[in-house]
Amino acid sequence: MRFYLDHAATTPLRPEARDAWLAATEVIGNASSTHGAGQDARRLLEESRERIAAVLGCDPIEVVLTSGGTESINTALRGLWAARITDVDAIVLPDGEHHASMDTVTALAAEGAVVRRVALSETGRIEVEAFADALSGAALATALVANNEVGTINDAAALADAAAAARIPLHLDAVSALGHVPLSFRGLRADAAPGVGLVAMSVAGHKVGAPVGVGALIVARTARLTGLLHGGAQQRGLRAGTQDVAGAAAFAVALELAEAERATEVERLSALRDRLISGIRSAVPSSTLLGDPYDRLPNNVHVLFPGAVGESLLFLLDVAGVAASTGSACQAGVAEPSHVVMAMGRSEQDARSVLRFTLGRTSDDADVDAVLATISDAYDRASGSASGSRS
Amino acid sequence: MRFYLDHAATTPLRPEARDAWLAATEVIGNASSTHGAGQDARRLLEESRERIAAVLGCDPIEVVLTSGGTESINTALRGLWAARITDVDAIVLPDGEHHASMDTVTALAAEGAVVRRVALSETGRIEVEAFADALSGAALATALVANNEVGTINDAAALADAAAAARIPLHLDAVSALGHVPLSFRGLRADAAPGVGLVAMSVAGHKVGAPVGVGALIVARTARLTGLLHGGAQQRGLRAGTQDVAGAAAFAVALELAEAERATEVERLSALRDRLISGIRSAVPSSTLLGDPYDRLPNNVHVLFPGAVGESLLFLLDVAGVAASTGSACQAGVAEPSHVVMAMGRSEQDARSVLRFTLGRTSDDADVDAVLATISDAYDRASGSASGSRS
Repeated sequence: MRFYLDHAATTPLRPEARDAWLAATEVIGNASSTHGAGQDARRLLEESRERIAAVLGCDPIEVVLTSGGTESINTALRGLWAARITDVDAIVLPDGEHHASMDTVTALAAEGAVVRRVALSETGRIEVEAFADALSGAALATALVANNEVGTINDAAALADAAAAARIPLHLDAVSALGHVPLSFRGLRADAAPGVGLVAMSVAGHKVGAPVGVGALIVARTARLTGLLHGGAQQRGLRAGTQDVAGAAAFAVALELAEAERATEVERLSALRDRLISGIRSAVPSSTLLGDPYDRLPNNVHVLFPGAVGESLLFLLDVAGVAASTGSACQAGVAEPSHVVMAMGRSEQDARSVLRFTLGRTSDDADVDAVLATISDAYDRASGSASGSRS
Repeated sequence: MRFYLDHAATTPLRPEARDAWLAATEVIGNASSTHGAGQDARRLLEESRERIAAVLGCDPIEVVLTSGGTESINTALRGLWAARITDVDAIVLPDGEHHASMDTVTALAAEGAVVRRVALSETGRIEVEAFADALSGAALATALVANNEVGTINDAAALADAAAAARIPLHLDAVSALGHVPLSFRGLRADAAPGVGLVAMSVAGHKVGAPVGVGALIVARTARLTGLLHGGAQQRGLRAGTQDVAGAAAFAVALELAEAERATEVERLSALRDRLISGIRSAVPSSTLLGDPYDRLPNNVHVLFPGAVGESLLFLLDVAGVAASTGSACQAGVAEPSHVVMAMGRSEQDARSVLRFTLGRTSDDADVDAVLATISDAYDRASGSASGSRS
């Protein structure tokens, strides 16, 4: 694949993270073993945890390492639900959240949770006032820091403040925001009382150049949360299982690099993004940028191509060596209209006519050029197939 | 650490598995993405799944990749419980199971499950008749293929046959058996009816030289099982989350190598093991081998040192460069007596006076020699501290 514009699905492994992984695998020993070999592994693990904590603005003990974003989100929502005060049964779930949150909440609804939805704005934003209104008396709330499909960045600080004011525990899904948006867990907790406001935040390593298979759930010291995986006292009892020292070491390195270059990368990617946006608008005048035009992930271009089937566009671009997406990779292959686009008030037809281009560390002008060289022709051909001849 | 005799806790990464991991990380793309890059990743993933399935004697679609043994076990037990027929509330749990099973069942007991214990024999064996007696009308059962602490190998085929006859779904924890005991999922299912008998089996990669952070739950096509991690349609909906292609590739390679060398390694390790057993008996005449002397993992030496505190022995051996364990690494650091040893009818004092030595691919005579050169002196010193002066 010559032109990879699907960094939101996964992003290439950083060489420095790979080297950290390799070096860590030379340390033989289970980090829970008390002998010298185990303690060598333990030291490397805890040093990695400290480095992750430093970037995310939390205490090392608040870093619960997981297998990735999906496990983090499942652990947070199910864990807060399991540890809730009895007789409080509502979960606040904005529309347009990632399926990891939606599907977990759906599973909890089958176990008695009442779901309070919060409508999105037409730009895919969670309105703070509507969110705050929904909080009263809820067991917990969750929200995306930035929408993974349409790229709209929410006002996470205001959402966290609202949860703190309502004294409700809040989980933030920061998976797509990581590396693009400043994230300080401590800052977002601000003056929240123990156990309420922002209490848990999910991140995944492979979105910032760490290997797939490692992530973290940041859990406030004071959070009331039950672990999901049982079987050992590791990580405050919140996540049993042999700890992945090499994954943690690679994640720490990738996260530090992503943070160190964030300011310059945000500027560089925003410029590439804006050139891609205006280029697509010129090439396909009927197209529309979805998501917020200003409060937007620097790597996200999400476009409605009226009358074209997204899957057809994807196929035609793919033939030209361009990798894009119709939405979340977790749902790709499932030919469903985007629930995010529909939550923004668009029709099901529109929700099937979108493409997401996401940039990253390895993206450059050639990637943008490749899309712009192809998109007009692809659109002409795909809009002819909008009646569904390919699906 | 010069002498590593704790392979049951974790075992060194195989160079071939490392190389497979590295090669796979060069394939950029989320295996759920429909574009060419994603499909390259998908091909590698599915090829790895096929190779894992071939070794374990199951169909590729039955291989659900996880983050490791703990996640596999949690998914199996909670998933079988969640999908049970209503009004059936008993879970059959032999004594001496790994904490991943015990603690998950304890969590399910808090949600209404009734736990039926099955006593172990004094050699740590699950008696087939007692197990079969406990099955009647149960929602599910679980059992270790081989005890991870004392090394006793159970008659997995007889346990599976008993579950098939009783028409109860059975999960086998094969984590410690993998690489040492022949495991054919299909064979163990034999003529079981759909959805009963052996329906799920847990394995972990890092016990056979794959990286930490990858494992599998083998789930029969006909099993009634609810997924634990929600958020995507990956892996039959049983395990959402971005699939770890590199981990799968490394696991496939490690598993194939472990299987290819199993017969010769079993012979080689059994000889080392037996030399270690008889050497310890000579050096410390009051010591006793625990676990079954015959049906025993080829890499396991588990010894009771009367009057000595296991943690003290561990410390003294560690100073001499020998890494051993008092039990499961998942519980190490938690200064508890071994629940397995107590389930074998021993006193709490005895259950604090044990050491486990486990061999592996990189073990040789020098490792055995190192233990034998140290153990007598260590015992003399540690039995002086049996009153607890160090703890």
